[in-house]
Amino acid sequence: MKVFIWGMGLIGTSLGLRLRQAGYSVSGAVRSERSRNILQQLGFSDIVTDSESCLRALAECEILALGLNIADCFPVIDQVMAVPTLREKLIIFDMCSSKKQICDYMQRNYPDAAFVGCHPMAGKEKQGPEAAEASLFESSTVFLADFVAEPSARQRAARQAVTQLWATTGARTATVAADEHDRIMAHVSHGLHLAACLIARLSGRLDTEGLTASPAAGSYRDMTRIAESSGTMWSEITASNRNHVSAWLRDLGAEAKRLADNLDAGTADIAALFAEAKAARGRIMRT
Amino acid sequence: MKVFIWGMGLIGTSLGLRLRQAGYSVSGAVRSERSRNILQQLGFSDIVTDSESCLRALAECEILALGLNIADCFPVIDQVMAVPTLREKLIIFDMCSSKKQICDYMQRNYPDAAFVGCHPMAGKEKQGPEAAEASLFESSTVFLADFVAEPSARQRAARQAVTQLWATTGARTATVAADEHDRIMAHVSHGLHLAACLIARLSGRLDTEGLTASPAAGSYRDMTRIAESSGTMWSEITASNRNHVSAWLRDLGAEAKRLADNLDAGTADIAALFAEAKAARGRIMRT
Repeated sequence: MKVFIWGMGLIGTSLGLRLRQAGYSVSGAVRSERSRNILQQLGFSDIVTDSESCLRALAECEILALGLNIADCFPVIDQVMAVPTLREKLIIFDMCSSKKQICDYMQRNYPDAAFVGCHPMAGKEKQGPEAAEASLFESSTVFLADFVAEPSARQRAARQAVTQLWATTGARTATVAADEHDRIMAHVSHGLHLAACLIARLSGRLDTEGLTASPAAGSYRDMTRIAESSGTMWSEITASNRNHVSAWLRDLGAEAKRLADNLDAGTADIAALFAEAKAARGRIMRT
Repeated sequence: MKVFIWGMGLIGTSLGLRLRQAGYSVSGAVRSERSRNILQQLGFSDIVTDSESCLRALAECEILALGLNIADCFPVIDQVMAVPTLREKLIIFDMCSSKKQICDYMQRNYPDAAFVGCHPMAGKEKQGPEAAEASLFESSTVFLADFVAEPSARQRAARQAVTQLWATTGARTATVAADEHDRIMAHVSHGLHLAACLIARLSGRLDTEGLTASPAAGSYRDMTRIAESSGTMWSEITASNRNHVSAWLRDLGAEAKRLADNLDAGTADIAALFAEAKAARGRIMRT
């Protein structure tokens, strides 16, 4: 199978490294010469940097994996879909963190495309091909979202090929409706990144200049770690899942206020809160 | 130096293991025979389980370290202070997570005591002597809080002895006023434990039964890890720092609501939020 990865940052390159090990033929596209040099050092010889070369390379491929931020996916999809032979032949999947926006776009514009919305739940605070690892997806979850209610035979075959591709990375796949996917993500990832930022920013109100040692222990480190992620990337992810993230933040805000009220009134049951939290966490973490 | 550790759970036993390595003579008290057996297996032969034996053992010691939950510290302090020879001789420090409540208690009742409020910022989700490690305090921060405005010569000497004791554990010490300590803790630990619970509990609203793989990735794991801590212990810590924790929760709630409002209005600057969060985190994490 020949796979073209359009956008080889952390995720795209990690996928490429793994697929190459599994016998796929991998080529791809990046924007900068710097990235191309890094990819060449990683042994990827067929890397192009302009759209025309991408379309030429795609003529030889069966699968197009989009390793781009969501906003960058749309023009690339339009370019590819404008070429009838590519539109009829290619299996396409994206790897964005939200699914409703891109699935809606495909349904509206290219309902016949052999497209599968994918979200590999793997990442790092670091970015770029230099941070890539072939094992990045090992034991992680990849969500698959259909974009049409009744997939055609060709779309079902595409789903099967993409499922198989992810299986070779060591990931587990799970199918979910696009909107439900985004609601889940608000609760287990997207909202949490913003909460980590709010918590870190609140700690900035402390005057710690005079302290001879840092007041940060494991709880602070863990609860604010993801605030070190890319603000640009998360700005885009948040925008692509705005309604669910906003609703989650409202819920968190209301719960925090309610707990403060209960603490002030002396009616807070902290032991029960921990018990309920543990039960919920157990259900989410179960493999 | 002879140290008596009243309450040898995770923290007390870890301290005992390290002090013994450093040449201190360590004895102590626990409530259960089970704990005493574990401590004997760890090589602590002088462990008692009743108050009278404690007071007898203390007659031979210079330092009393309280490894108890805060509510249990007060009756023990009263018992010890009721013995004039112990009150005049012993250096006493606690290891509770909040400082104002215990410092106020000491100031009100025993202003002449050679007491130093301590808070070693080290811990685990696991509890009990079986989880103890001699290296637990290595590179961690221990906060010291004075309980009187103008310490006597004896109180200054106590502070020096306690500072030196912590230095042997590999911890860094930092002096801070008791109330400011508690405000800092609300921002870097106490509030965060409750926020982790709220976040975990919100995820319980998801219906994930039908998913073939867990939606939890690193961000969820890290942001909810401390929800696995002991609800009983955190119930007590929260109660001992109620005002600051409640104020912090109110701030978090207001910030979450404001961010949701800005997202809905299309005026949220997520990149700026991440930048501010990173700057604040950098100041807190600096060693």
